[in-house]
Amino acid sequence: MRTEVCDLVGAEFPLFAFSHCRDVVAAVTNAGGFGVLGAVAYSPERLEEELRWIDREVGGRPYGVDVLVPAKIDGSAERGGNPLAAIPKEHWDFLLALFEKYGVPVPDFGGAGAEKAAAGGARSVTGSGAVELIDVSLSHPIRLIASALGTPPPLMVEKAKAAGVPVAALVGTVEHARRQVAAGVDLIVAQGGEAGGHTGEISTMVLVPEVVDAVAPVPVLAAGGIATGRQIAAALTLGASGVWCGSVWLTTEEAETLPTVKRKLLEASATDTIRSRSRTGKPARQLVSAWTEEWEGPGSPGALPMPLQMIVAEGAMRHLSKAAENGNPGAAELVNYFVGQCVGLMRTVKPAKQVVYDMVEEFADAVDRLTAITGAG
Amino acid sequence: MRTEVCDLVGAEFPLFAFSHCRDVVAAVTNAGGFGVLGAVAYSPERLEEELRWIDREVGGRPYGVDVLVPAKIDGSAERGGNPLAAIPKEHWDFLLALFEKYGVPVPDFGGAGAEKAAAGGARSVTGSGAVELIDVSLSHPIRLIASALGTPPPLMVEKAKAAGVPVAALVGTVEHARRQVAAGVDLIVAQGGEAGGHTGEISTMVLVPEVVDAVAPVPVLAAGGIATGRQIAAALTLGASGVWCGSVWLTTEEAETLPTVKRKLLEASATDTIRSRSRTGKPARQLVSAWTEEWEGPGSPGALPMPLQMIVAEGAMRHLSKAAENGNPGAAELVNYFVGQCVGLMRTVKPAKQVVYDMVEEFADAVDRLTAITGAG
Repeated sequence: MRTEVCDLVGAEFPLFAFSHCRDVVAAVTNAGGFGVLGAVAYSPERLEEELRWIDREVGGRPYGVDVLVPAKIDGSAERGGNPLAAIPKEHWDFLLALFEKYGVPVPDFGGAGAEKAAAGGARSVTGSGAVELIDVSLSHPIRLIASALGTPPPLMVEKAKAAGVPVAALVGTVEHARRQVAAGVDLIVAQGGEAGGHTGEISTMVLVPEVVDAVAPVPVLAAGGIATGRQIAAALTLGASGVWCGSVWLTTEEAETLPTVKRKLLEASATDTIRSRSRTGKPARQLVSAWTEEWEGPGSPGALPMPLQMIVAEGAMRHLSKAAENGNPGAAELVNYFVGQCVGLMRTVKPAKQVVYDMVEEFADAVDRLTAITGAG
Repeated sequence: MRTEVCDLVGAEFPLFAFSHCRDVVAAVTNAGGFGVLGAVAYSPERLEEELRWIDREVGGRPYGVDVLVPAKIDGSAERGGNPLAAIPKEHWDFLLALFEKYGVPVPDFGGAGAEKAAAGGARSVTGSGAVELIDVSLSHPIRLIASALGTPPPLMVEKAKAAGVPVAALVGTVEHARRQVAAGVDLIVAQGGEAGGHTGEISTMVLVPEVVDAVAPVPVLAAGGIATGRQIAAALTLGASGVWCGSVWLTTEEAETLPTVKRKLLEASATDTIRSRSRTGKPARQLVSAWTEEWEGPGSPGALPMPLQMIVAEGAMRHLSKAAENGNPGAAELVNYFVGQCVGLMRTVKPAKQVVYDMVEEFADAVDRLTAITGAG
């Protein structure tokens, strides 16, 4: 399954693996695919460390980095210095009540540690934070830099072009795809509404052919709901030049997914996800849990805009994760993670390398099935 | 593109065309596909007339009928004799205000004609109404009877089996698919959330492989968002044995789509649909219009359950359609129709036969593209 995208980024086959876990990135790249490290929650120092590790592991094989550059963010996080001040008391009260209702010990949300973590979290999704991550990324031999949200700032495109690194961008509509190409993007990731994380509403089956036609000859990767080789074959028949998968790596051996969440993912079916603003402030598909039910429920104050909701939610999730792993049943009910509707196709824990090999094999079977049908026609 | 489904229903290729328009049904069947007449809004007498016409047109070539048999309906429509009595005044008031706001002359919603139409509409979506439609259908040489909503009643399966006619059912989740197969259904239509009309939330890309694996060896048709040959090829690589398309016929020459609505469909993009309860009482994907915006908006009393909302909406839509065709601009803003996200792929008016031929040609191109990619790998 070689396409022009393989030449663009130097991979054996056009299977892009988005993961926040460096082990997954390295494993997929070493298996012939293309690992992309999601660097949104990282400090520049942490990113430098992760990329050094990956460089050692992949021995020159190609990989990429994804930074989250929102087109519009709530400026209060940058203006005031302390983004915590912009969060209404109502939201802290709701959060405290949630911890109490589920019997989880309430941490000191307003303490000095929380302020520091919040400032760091806010910084990584603002323009200035993203630029630092871009600079660190481009100082490594990456073969792709991706912008997960909105049009990449001209500075990012300029820096990447100067370094000879192709730029990719995720889109959920045809109009966004056109805008990205106009901004100088080399590779479009058309992400259907069934995807995990930040996502639109147009499905992969409809979005991919529309985007392919709209931006040709710029190559398009299909994303959203893809976890099997059959779906890769389907994406290529729709006109895509490859696929971008995120969810499927969450249940691999290498993934740093919280064990409680990993168990939930393995048991979940396609109907167990929801597109909710409750974790980041923008609609993001995630596992249904007590967290989403409470924030989407009648007593909720509603989600704040990004990055404020992200600060509220990620701080809480850190505490809930620890409590869940320490056996707190209420915390286990609340924790969740971003995942696509393909969660129902993820049933066993496998090494990431094995997921790649299984996908390639199933891809070949799907192609054989299709040609057999055609041959008999 | 021959699959086992071709043998099941006697078609040349497994392209199923759902339409309320007999001309579309006959044209697709005569082009080698399989037309399915949507008989939900018909009286038994009208259905008899339509099927006689189709029999003459297709000269023995295979076609089918789809009846809407809801799993759960509001019993008030059958109990009271006059379903109009079950509709709250608040809803009539909202409707009257809507007509006034958009400058459309207000018809006599509560008159004798309205009562008759309402009773007919309610009857066709209740058990007793559906049984009459089933009997009429099975007295013709149909090769498939489909149930659009919920598990078909045992009586329908028994009658169809006795007549040697395969039964199909539309499903939106794996659990529904299993239930349908247990009820004796011969062909599953796995319909993704991007579909027009009554639909769930799981996308076609995710639903089809899940359902195929769950019900094998029962054959599965892919539905939802499919309007091109590329997408048919994608559906077959996902494991489907064919496709079921509805939206794409709405802009054909034969379609009885209201001219105002046809123009809107041709101009719409994938982002112009919404899954709304405002026309039938159940979530149904349709074109965004002033109608959906008002019913989904802050001043709305909310949709009633099926079939009550259907009575309110369909009566109003009949009047609005006439007013729109007579040049009333407010009515033109309000009218809409059920359509999937593939509406953005529908750009020109063509004969239904031509749509079939274009799909078959594009299917072959997509297969060639995929085998070229594989061959070079």
